[in-house]
Amino acid sequence: MTYDPTNIFAKILNGDLPCHKVHEDDIALVMMDIFPQSKGHTLVVPKAASRNLLDANPADLSAVMPLVQRVAQAVKAATRADGLRVMQFNEAPAGQTVFHLHFHIIPIYEGVALGAHSGGKADDAELAALARDIASEL
Amino acid sequence: MTYDPTNIFAKILNGDLPCHKVHEDDIALVMMDIFPQSKGHTLVVPKAASRNLLDANPADLSAVMPLVQRVAQAVKAATRADGLRVMQFNEAPAGQTVFHLHFHIIPIYEGVALGAHSGGKADDAELAALARDIASEL
Repeated sequence: MTYDPTNIFAKILNGDLPCHKVHEDDIALVMMDIFPQSKGHTLVVPKAASRNLLDANPADLSAVMPLVQRVAQAVKAATRADGLRVMQFNEAPAGQTVFHLHFHIIPIYEGVALGAHSGGKADDAELAALARDIASEL
Repeated sequence: MTYDPTNIFAKILNGDLPCHKVHEDDIALVMMDIFPQSKGHTLVVPKAASRNLLDANPADLSAVMPLVQRVAQAVKAATRADGLRVMQFNEAPAGQTVFHLHFHIIPIYEGVALGAHSGGKADDAELAALARDIASEL
């Protein structure tokens, strides 16, 4: 399995495609998932190129995890979710759809089932407001 | 939310309860999940005490991630799974049942649905064999 530099997250990292950005630093881009499984579903996308966890540079994983934690804390604060799932998928049978390493941060609300990832594109204005709310907690 | 040092993973880390151990080092204990969602479901349990990702020491997260990667690679090699999910749950509404930080590494097999976590305790002999197979790939 190899890394395809034309994947959609590489294009977003390059600035060739837009996103609802929460945060960007040397290590990663943080953005809203446009097909959210719940309100506030956020992605942490390391800038270092790897297909997924299996081929990543271990040092890049160590570098990004404190940011994954900070984003999880900010998402929980901004959404007042009752819990959070952090998920990372490797290869298509596991649910990976974009082949650039990323971490899903998914708020869980008591009594609310998660939507299917294919449940439809979220409203841009709502995503923009969520991105601002989460950024303000970072 | 605070850390309860009598949780079941703390007791396993202390040696007060048994487990199907894959690997142990200064950073973490790696063991089989006894209620597996799929064949080869493995847990990475950092030795540093935290309730979950939200209250963990960032340096401990950086330290454990290269091991999470190595275990993911070993689980994939040992089980010949078609994909892998890495999942980490925070608080009960998100599915957390043991309140000591841990990472689930769940093999995914094409065409095989994941079992519910409450699907029952796995056979000890099968878990012991899987632990040996995964350890041999580490």
